[in-house]
Amino acid sequence: MMKNNLKAVVLLSGGIDSATTLAIAKDEGFDVYALSFRYGQRHAIELEAAKRIAQQVKVAEHVIIDVDLRRIGGSALTADIAVPKSRSIEKMGKDVPVTYVPARNTIFLSYALAWAEVVGADDIFIGVNALDYSGYPDCRPGYIFAYEQMANLATKAGVEDGRKLKIHAPLIEMSKSQIIIKGIELGVDYSLTHSCYDPSATGEACGECDSCLLRLKGFNDAGVKDPVKYKNEI
Amino acid sequence: MMKNNLKAVVLLSGGIDSATTLAIAKDEGFDVYALSFRYGQRHAIELEAAKRIAQQVKVAEHVIIDVDLRRIGGSALTADIAVPKSRSIEKMGKDVPVTYVPARNTIFLSYALAWAEVVGADDIFIGVNALDYSGYPDCRPGYIFAYEQMANLATKAGVEDGRKLKIHAPLIEMSKSQIIIKGIELGVDYSLTHSCYDPSATGEACGECDSCLLRLKGFNDAGVKDPVKYKNEI
Repeated sequence: MMKNNLKAVVLLSGGIDSATTLAIAKDEGFDVYALSFRYGQRHAIELEAAKRIAQQVKVAEHVIIDVDLRRIGGSALTADIAVPKSRSIEKMGKDVPVTYVPARNTIFLSYALAWAEVVGADDIFIGVNALDYSGYPDCRPGYIFAYEQMANLATKAGVEDGRKLKIHAPLIEMSKSQIIIKGIELGVDYSLTHSCYDPSATGEACGECDSCLLRLKGFNDAGVKDPVKYKNEI
Repeated sequence: MMKNNLKAVVLLSGGIDSATTLAIAKDEGFDVYALSFRYGQRHAIELEAAKRIAQQVKVAEHVIIDVDLRRIGGSALTADIAVPKSRSIEKMGKDVPVTYVPARNTIFLSYALAWAEVVGADDIFIGVNALDYSGYPDCRPGYIFAYEQMANLATKAGVEDGRKLKIHAPLIEMSKSQIIIKGIELGVDYSLTHSCYDPSATGEACGECDSCLLRLKGFNDAGVKDPVKYKNEI
């Protein structure tokens, strides 16, 4: 297999974090293979955002994989459980939220690993963030490191070809406002992104779910106006 | 979440190894949640075998997940690459075979991990085997151990609830004939299993692909007649 360190698989959900991660990978000189998932999420509108972002930044390829998480269940994002509305950051639970999808990042990274092996990429980028969303266990540095260790034993690339797979999580220690400031530096068009867990039929963000609250606080802290449209925007 | 150590998720492909692994999990007293995958494999007939086995041993639940590996490509089992016919064990390549599906076990274990979390299982069984098929990197003990380490950092169960997830690979050091002898002890009906990578339209095994050769050698070494039907059976 041709050695080409300039290819990277980037997980692209269509939100702020993955759009910024994609911009970081491009800025580091990688030819980007963007990977998104259709996993029965209520907010499938995210995928439209992912497509727009992938087109705008000219990725080498953008693949959307169907992932059948509904057969497994267990999350408000895919099952018939109400999305919680906290109305303030302070009132957001500190426990793992009901929007947690079991092993989601593990499943997504596993597809990324498979695709990295096929295209000959040694680098995988994921926009996880430990600070703003510590409720998700699979967004923490120890998890990412353990995944990388496993990945290097899992594939022909790591085991036979002596290549070293690296899982990049460039946002992991950044706050939402730091992420937004970094993205603006790199020219990310956040009007293309989508974060809301519970958008209106016309795609407007609810402004009340955990994801909207974190996003709005991030833009506020960064001193930048959020370019997306909210349902009850004043 | 209710603590119930008696549930286990078992990966069930419908071949000898997974049928035996399922019998071992049952023998150890686990209530089995069997998980199979439809991943564009040419030998989808395996899934029929998986269903028959799951019914016969009375699992608690059997779920078949659609996994979209064709979008990723890279294997003779899912893409348009000819399945190699070696005609003898000695002539089988020592390299990673073209039937290797990139990161397949990593993807499968990730779904198992998600389902284990949802049903409250602390145990996952996988029928990988390092001796007979050392060509696959993700069938080795170091890989399984690294996966278990990662899994314990990936999920709410491992991180928040202080539970310990265990990945069982009871066949990992066994030869095919040892596996078959163990299975017969436990009452496995191998006539229900399917191994061939390239079966005829009526489901007869080819007797020539790597998988058939290993199976036939296993039964031969165990001194037992293989109960499945082969195309050119004498």
